[in-house]
Amino acid sequence: MAVYTEVSDEDLQAFAADYNFGEIVSFKGIAEGVENSNYMLQTATGPFILTLYEKRVNPAELPFFLNLMEHLARSGVQCPVPLKGRDGKALRTLCGRPAAIISFLNGMSPRRITAEHCGPLGAALAGLHQASMNFDMKRANSLSVAGWRDLYARTAPGAVEGLEKGLGALITSELEALSKAWPALGSNLLPEGVIHADLFPDNVFFQGGKCSGLIDFYFACNDFLAYDIAVCLNAWCFEPDGAFNFTKASRLIAGYESVRPLTRTEREAMPTLARGASMRFLLTRLYDWVNTPPGAMVKVKDPREYLQKLRFHRGVKDISAYVS
Amino acid sequence: MAVYTEVSDEDLQAFAADYNFGEIVSFKGIAEGVENSNYMLQTATGPFILTLYEKRVNPAELPFFLNLMEHLARSGVQCPVPLKGRDGKALRTLCGRPAAIISFLNGMSPRRITAEHCGPLGAALAGLHQASMNFDMKRANSLSVAGWRDLYARTAPGAVEGLEKGLGALITSELEALSKAWPALGSNLLPEGVIHADLFPDNVFFQGGKCSGLIDFYFACNDFLAYDIAVCLNAWCFEPDGAFNFTKASRLIAGYESVRPLTRTEREAMPTLARGASMRFLLTRLYDWVNTPPGAMVKVKDPREYLQKLRFHRGVKDISAYVS
Repeated sequence: MAVYTEVSDEDLQAFAADYNFGEIVSFKGIAEGVENSNYMLQTATGPFILTLYEKRVNPAELPFFLNLMEHLARSGVQCPVPLKGRDGKALRTLCGRPAAIISFLNGMSPRRITAEHCGPLGAALAGLHQASMNFDMKRANSLSVAGWRDLYARTAPGAVEGLEKGLGALITSELEALSKAWPALGSNLLPEGVIHADLFPDNVFFQGGKCSGLIDFYFACNDFLAYDIAVCLNAWCFEPDGAFNFTKASRLIAGYESVRPLTRTEREAMPTLARGASMRFLLTRLYDWVNTPPGAMVKVKDPREYLQKLRFHRGVKDISAYVS
Repeated sequence: MAVYTEVSDEDLQAFAADYNFGEIVSFKGIAEGVENSNYMLQTATGPFILTLYEKRVNPAELPFFLNLMEHLARSGVQCPVPLKGRDGKALRTLCGRPAAIISFLNGMSPRRITAEHCGPLGAALAGLHQASMNFDMKRANSLSVAGWRDLYARTAPGAVEGLEKGLGALITSELEALSKAWPALGSNLLPEGVIHADLFPDNVFFQGGKCSGLIDFYFACNDFLAYDIAVCLNAWCFEPDGAFNFTKASRLIAGYESVRPLTRTEREAMPTLARGASMRFLLTRLYDWVNTPPGAMVKVKDPREYLQKLRFHRGVKDISAYVS
């Protein structure tokens, strides 16, 4: 939710000259996306989104993300399509940063989640997983179990105690438990593929009660498909007071299974995957909490929200806690 | 440059039901305006801007601003027009805040000011002044000479010394000098009318080299017309390194005079008005500098930029420093 890079008129005109969208009639920074600068670009041929990739994004990974969006859109997933310049390239440079223009999607991110959102969300997620099956690029999930210990080490464990007494010990023991319980990638135990990995309500558009688009693929990676459901269980199925909403979770999973039924092993693994998804966002939020300087222009989210979710999933025995 | 109020889907739909613009297809917070929350609203009948007025705006003054925009637009000024609901009212309530939808203007604020911007800017400003002549509502300028002492008192003069040694004494003596030199309102010495009072580059759109719109009328008030030029001299005619650009100023004033020639008294008063305009922004920036808590989500602008401008104008003898 920020604009980090100011684009001068001359830079914008020079950049736009490489495209065929006609005259630019408006250019406004939008409060969308946390990591990058996003602009809404109104042109003679319609609206587009211009993204400048800021320092948290590894430029070497951008072809993966842009090609993925193009592949998904071609496969029928409603997601932004990167626009190619006259030279056929979608990834360009603007103000010294990697930049791309993507298509504009209609619809709005829900500010207040209702159970009605969760079925269409699940179906859209399963559609994404089916479409990504035959995408031929790969990207490891750097924010999965193998990366958690390092991430935790960089949050300065001592500082974490200031947030809640005993939090360090809890994380250490949970990391231990998860590293034992976590399924091995490539073992064929659980279906794998390209997942979104960050499908929060901000990244899902609805229009007229239907899911009209998925955006922000910049955490997409190869991992267990069911892990994406686990991320969504956390992001969509808890109430603001921390209570788990079984109806929302059931609709999410039922919506998903209306497109791709879960395997028995996926159902068995769901509580573990949900614990892992809680740990991943607990750790990145802790990292931001500890490492964001006080005067920074970003709103740091409270890590304890994910601690509460982690505790909930630790008490779950099997998938019947999530779906009937 | 912020979105302070999150609007829920239900609130937005209920709000939109009072208008005739058809289905909402997109709703995005935009980085425009400092004081209020602004959203770009794409509808079946085109784009609009939705503004929620936040706490710095006095709700009692909103009819002045909205009626002014309507009056100006009807008089041919390119500025946003408030959209009326089915009940004929433009000012409504959303999320407990006053809110209005205004028309969308094409064009872009210049990020880098060139001399080419300044002529069209001056002409547009004079057009605004001519059109506002027969606007029948009034609003005093609370940020003019009579309000400066109080504003300075509220910046905690002691804290100001931390910014630059001797700054307090300089402001005190300058306030004294300005209160003596400042022309009296209503004395017929200088032409008066409704002025914009905040015509910074952010608030002016250009397209194809022409000024395509003026926005953000929320500081508009009754004052000397030439004071608006003084504000623009400061906002448009200094280089990032602090140097005054005579070419830009000349084009600004010549552009203005191509529509409304200045009177002799206006020309004589210009250096004083420019000192006053420097003082006004120096004081509000100092106020924000001293009163913004360290963790606040706003970028506080350096007051010293306006101290430098004030010093420049103190050295100016007559209008020949601004225009040939």
